[in-house]
Amino acid sequence: MASKAIFYHAGCPVCVSAEQAVANAIDPSKYTVEIVHLGTDKARIAEAEKAGVKSVPALVIDGAAFHINFGAGIDDLK
Amino acid sequence: MASKAIFYHAGCPVCVSAEQAVANAIDPSKYTVEIVHLGTDKARIAEAEKAGVKSVPALVIDGAAFHINFGAGIDDLK
Repeated sequence: MASKAIFYHAGCPVCVSAEQAVANAIDPSKYTVEIVHLGTDKARIAEAEKAGVKSVPALVIDGAAFHINFGAGIDDLK
Repeated sequence: MASKAIFYHAGCPVCVSAEQAVANAIDPSKYTVEIVHLGTDKARIAEAEKAGVKSVPALVIDGAAFHINFGAGIDDLK
């Protein structure tokens, strides 16, 4: 059975599509990926914090939180 | 044919095994993952920079660089 990986984000307009590239690249035979938008699903913030999530987007795999930062330049935000 | 994803790291003793969890979770039918240790393979630093890598570990997928930070606490480093 596949383990569960959870991708937490908050709808960052610049980053979300690029970051989902990471979530979508995950092997479905190894992990079932759940996408959680903490901006709209605030009830799950406590759960994310408990998993070690300090910032979004983050991917929790096998109980370990990985914080993913897309290397967007300031110019991309203008 | 699978696209190529490249995981760049520099042998961080605390982080490397945990971060490879991310690389190893990637679907091999979608991406062929290459692991590059920039500490020992310095000839590839320029290529990594060109792909937008600002820090390691980083995962380059479809030409986009994602910087991955494991949320290790200071206590984990002691």
